[in-house]
Amino acid sequence: MSILVVGSVAFDTVKTPSGAVEDALGGSAMHFSVAASFWSPVRLVAVVGEDFTDEHRRPLLARKVDLAGLSTAKGRTFRWSGVYGDDLNSAQTLDTQLNVFAEFRPDIPAGWRDTPVLFLANIDPELQLDVLRQVPGRKLSAADTMNYWIESKPDALKRVLGGVEIAFINDGEIRQLTGERNVVRAADAVRALGPKTVVVKRGEHGVLVFDRDDAFALPGFPLPAVTDPTGAGDAFAGGFLGFLASTPGETDVRRAAVVGSVMASFQVEDFSHGRMDTLTRAEIEERYARFADLVRFSPLS
Amino acid sequence: MSILVVGSVAFDTVKTPSGAVEDALGGSAMHFSVAASFWSPVRLVAVVGEDFTDEHRRPLLARKVDLAGLSTAKGRTFRWSGVYGDDLNSAQTLDTQLNVFAEFRPDIPAGWRDTPVLFLANIDPELQLDVLRQVPGRKLSAADTMNYWIESKPDALKRVLGGVEIAFINDGEIRQLTGERNVVRAADAVRALGPKTVVVKRGEHGVLVFDRDDAFALPGFPLPAVTDPTGAGDAFAGGFLGFLASTPGETDVRRAAVVGSVMASFQVEDFSHGRMDTLTRAEIEERYARFADLVRFSPLS
Repeated sequence: MSILVVGSVAFDTVKTPSGAVEDALGGSAMHFSVAASFWSPVRLVAVVGEDFTDEHRRPLLARKVDLAGLSTAKGRTFRWSGVYGDDLNSAQTLDTQLNVFAEFRPDIPAGWRDTPVLFLANIDPELQLDVLRQVPGRKLSAADTMNYWIESKPDALKRVLGGVEIAFINDGEIRQLTGERNVVRAADAVRALGPKTVVVKRGEHGVLVFDRDDAFALPGFPLPAVTDPTGAGDAFAGGFLGFLASTPGETDVRRAAVVGSVMASFQVEDFSHGRMDTLTRAEIEERYARFADLVRFSPLS
Repeated sequence: MSILVVGSVAFDTVKTPSGAVEDALGGSAMHFSVAASFWSPVRLVAVVGEDFTDEHRRPLLARKVDLAGLSTAKGRTFRWSGVYGDDLNSAQTLDTQLNVFAEFRPDIPAGWRDTPVLFLANIDPELQLDVLRQVPGRKLSAADTMNYWIESKPDALKRVLGGVEIAFINDGEIRQLTGERNVVRAADAVRALGPKTVVVKRGEHGVLVFDRDDAFALPGFPLPAVTDPTGAGDAFAGGFLGFLASTPGETDVRRAAVVGSVMASFQVEDFSHGRMDTLTRAEIEERYARFADLVRFSPLS
């Protein structure tokens, strides 16, 4: 089944202890699309500026991402610049230039309004609500967000969560959103807003999935080197939803979370979409098996 | 097989968002002993003051902990006072009174010098080295430590690590000790000092076990309420080593880490040794099974 993603495509300037890139292809919808494309066909809705060239489209087209919803507006593409210190869990933002993204009003192509799986990447929750209205034919929808929207538009964000089946949120943000310090109770509070499934992203510590009354936990993959954490959360969501969309009727959120973790673990091995360009199905399957080995243990007796 | 533990027995005054206790039985060797006693016979070496009564010995004796090595010195028992805020991962120390602990020189009873399993709880690494010399008949030894000793006595601590098979250390401390930010490389650096097995404790995020070239990860148990995290790391070590000592030849560090996590997950459900007083074998086995269910997932295809 196809997945429709609405979010940002950006040029990122990133510095980490491993190196740096300037104006590299980035943005939540870009990272999501590339990761999801290994599993299901992806339709991308975003806006870029006149400085976004065919060369920039090439990595997405190579992954067969449908760019019919990628509009070009007068002006420059969204730019973000950040630096990671030794603590790779959080970036310090140096500069944000919204540029054409400031006026982004998602317009879903007519033929995409019944796309079965919808992902609302991290954008203004009022735009996310508008997209929900524009895709009435969806069967499954999910949303991501960030602390900025929790602070500035909590009510709109709660309405978004009321309209989706799956919420992706990191562990600091779920505490901020719910006022609950305990992650189990915080997830209960988010589920009370609407989503059946709450996926708590914990960076290098992995992920917690609360699905109705069931809890699943997966540690992060212990990589000996992380080059750039940018896009890890989006690649996780891409793998998670890409897996669920890959087979009609697939509802196994545990396997989805492992696939998401596999895609995220590759995402951080290089800057931008670098690692994804060479990633193979065999490598994905091997790492999935290594996750199984990582958490394997025998019964007590 | 028997386990010998050398560490602190203390009176703790603790405040958490769930409540408070004053002069409650605490200390690394106390928490370790109680948890380990569910699995193997425990011999405790520590010092207390004249204010330590038979009433204080009762919970340890109820767990059949051998107190022949618990000496009484002139003065007051070691006291610690701390407060946990909403972030239960770290305590703010309000007061530390070493009292009789300041002059603690562990003297291992003659009959205990061939105890097969030795645990050096968090004390001055020079004292830990002295204990290693006093227990030449040991078959397996493990050490814990803390940031204070990493800063003040790094060389002695490295000699301790050179003499044990298993190192317990939390994720902030392993980075501090090795100067390596990446936990995989940090564990490699600790293994290079001697221990075959490095156990990285990550609080609510669980535990990582590096055993020769093998890596095992277990998330923390998602508890809906944590009353008091004090002693969680010691209860973990108690379960881990208690399990390994419970059967001669047992070397499964994965099951040991799950048992440790089970014991730690109970430890935090009440203050001091409160939860341990009523804990049953059936509850332990049930939570072990729930850990297995928590991380269970199917193959990709």
